Amino acid sequence: MKSIALDVMGGDYAPCEVLKGAKSTLDDEDIKLYLVGQEKEVKDCLDKVGFKHYDKIEIVDAPEVVTMKDTIISYLRGKKKSSIKIALELVKNGEADGMFSAGNTGAVMVNAKFILEPLEGIKRPALAVIFPTQKGESVILDVGANADCKPEHLFQFAVMATIFSEEILGKKNPSIGLMSIGEETLKGNKLTKEAFKLLSNSKLNFKGNIEGHVIHQGIVDIIVTDGFTGNVALKVAEGMAENLYGHFKNTLTRNILHKLGLLLLWSGLRKLKKKLDYSEYGGAILLGVKGVVVIGHGRSRVKAIKNGLLTTKKMIEKEVYQKISERIKEVNIGG
Amino acid sequence: MKSIALDVMGGDYAPCEVLKGAKSTLDDEDIKLYLVGQEKEVKDCLDKVGFKHYDKIEIVDAPEVVTMKDTIISYLRGKKKSSIKIALELVKNGEADGMFSAGNTGAVMVNAKFILEPLEGIKRPALAVIFPTQKGESVILDVGANADCKPEHLFQFAVMATIFSEEILGKKNPSIGLMSIGEETLKGNKLTKEAFKLLSNSKLNFKGNIEGHVIHQGIVDIIVTDGFTGNVALKVAEGMAENLYGHFKNTLTRNILHKLGLLLLWSGLRKLKKKLDYSEYGGAILLGVKGVVVIGHGRSRVKAIKNGLLTTKKMIEKEVYQKISERIKEVNIGG
Repeated sequence: MKSIALDVMGGDYAPCEVLKGAKSTLDDEDIKLYLVGQEKEVKDCLDKVGFKHYDKIEIVDAPEVVTMKDTIISYLRGKKKSSIKIALELVKNGEADGMFSAGNTGAVMVNAKFILEPLEGIKRPALAVIFPTQKGESVILDVGANADCKPEHLFQFAVMATIFSEEILGKKNPSIGLMSIGEETLKGNKLTKEAFKLLSNSKLNFKGNIEGHVIHQGIVDIIVTDGFTGNVALKVAEGMAENLYGHFKNTLTRNILHKLGLLLLWSGLRKLKKKLDYSEYGGAILLGVKGVVVIGHGRSRVKAIKNGLLTTKKMIEKEVYQKISERIKEVNIGG
Repeated sequence: MKSIALDVMGGDYAPCEVLKGAKSTLDDEDIKLYLVGQEKEVKDCLDKVGFKHYDKIEIVDAPEVVTMKDTIISYLRGKKKSSIKIALELVKNGEADGMFSAGNTGAVMVNAKFILEPLEGIKRPALAVIFPTQKGESVILDVGANADCKPEHLFQFAVMATIFSEEILGKKNPSIGLMSIGEETLKGNKLTKEAFKLLSNSKLNFKGNIEGHVIHQGIVDIIVTDGFTGNVALKVAEGMAENLYGHFKNTLTRNILHKLGLLLLWSGLRKLKKKLDYSEYGGAILLGVKGVVVIGHGRSRVKAIKNGLLTTKKMIEKEVYQKISERIKEVNIGG
């Protein structure tokens, strides 16, 4: 039976909401969960949520908690007994097959790179996110692991995302777009112009530059970008989706017909908001480290926690990181 | 009477839609327009749209047209008699007080930098856009003039946007945010970390980093970023707004109540789409060159053309570029 180390202390609604997610997952799935967190808190919450699957869990005490306010120095050098570090160590030691956390994204990424280490040949692990498009689902990476990138990093992101897309989304020979500011070859910044050359000269299914206003159309399966641009793009989209309610309220409630229409649409709007919201899609996946690491949105509720655990399970079963490790040895790039 | 050189050939619906915009503007405004374009086409369209204000216009023949497919080499070195170049030369020669084009953004920017030249002391002209927020309007720059920036460029963008925001949006001591990927000082890429220091040590009303998901909340009056990131952010937001109809159609039409609700909301949705769509807001303004240059969205219709001309007029009347020229001499920065 595969096992996942779950950071019970991570997320805005931890630990009880995380444990509800664990319960919901174990209702359907045959996996073992290491519940990593402050033991007393965990036990109290298990009682509260009417937890049943005691045969499928093991509580691992982690006395320290990383919060959203922790700085990189505090969570990397300090807090040696945080739930994030202990969960990662369970993966490192081979006790767990993967880890999931809805906690501080920076803390999970940095500690994962340090504890699990990058795969041999991978210059920079990257954070990938699945997002909804008009045609289905696409992957965008990096969305925040590397604020400054070199062209060869972007090339490796494309290699990793190709395997991820094949294994997790079941796409054959997934197409790749390079996020840029014009469709032509010559447009972009120094980074994308060089990355364009590397991608063009590779065997990857590279389709050229892609601009921000078409990423939701599903024109390509994979969008490659540096972690700074990817993070900004993702958050702008997230902000638009989040503000949809607000925009509707502000714009449409001065007219009685609009009010009635809005009332009728309310449940649909909720659905649309979820559709546009990548955080419902099972979290962000750290690709390129020696192990499976999935990071949920801080505001994850039961369903998002469950989706995150399911993504983690699938990453384990499909042996994605092992396949990335093999493929990266095969591709030769300069730099 | 102030005068504007209007690129009649620029935009997806040029020249007739542009001339309708000119007509609508001259119905209300006391300005002179140089109608720059292929003379015969212009005259034919003037007849078609029932143009009246012949006392307020002068047709300037420009036999060549820059299209969206033209490359930087073709529109910079070639097409010497394009409507864009001739309109800019009218500004350069002092015949027109400013120019407006809904044509190829790259061609307008590059030719403006070459023909009008940057203001003394300005290292890089930048493209600014006014966008709607929950609290009113904010300015974001650079949205595409400079794909690669240095920290001192971002600092100058902040200075230029401060004057723009004061003069055009009537804001006192406008607040400035630096687009980044975390609120903390230490987060960001190399560029933003250095720019953060310059902005912090200045007399500008700098509020720190701002993340992509809150730009629509109107937390700050000005958002400073490099032209690559700014362009991606703007286009992602644009894509979301454009796709709103599509998303609604796809998500909400399976339920009869939703269908009815959508029907009632239809006119409101159109309103919301416009509210979220920066292209309705009078175009992008090229700050930092010796003259007034405003660029409309390619798909500009009558109202957007008119708004663009009104922005151009206001830029002229408020003497924004002259004030930027004065202020930039006062601020001392390294680099």
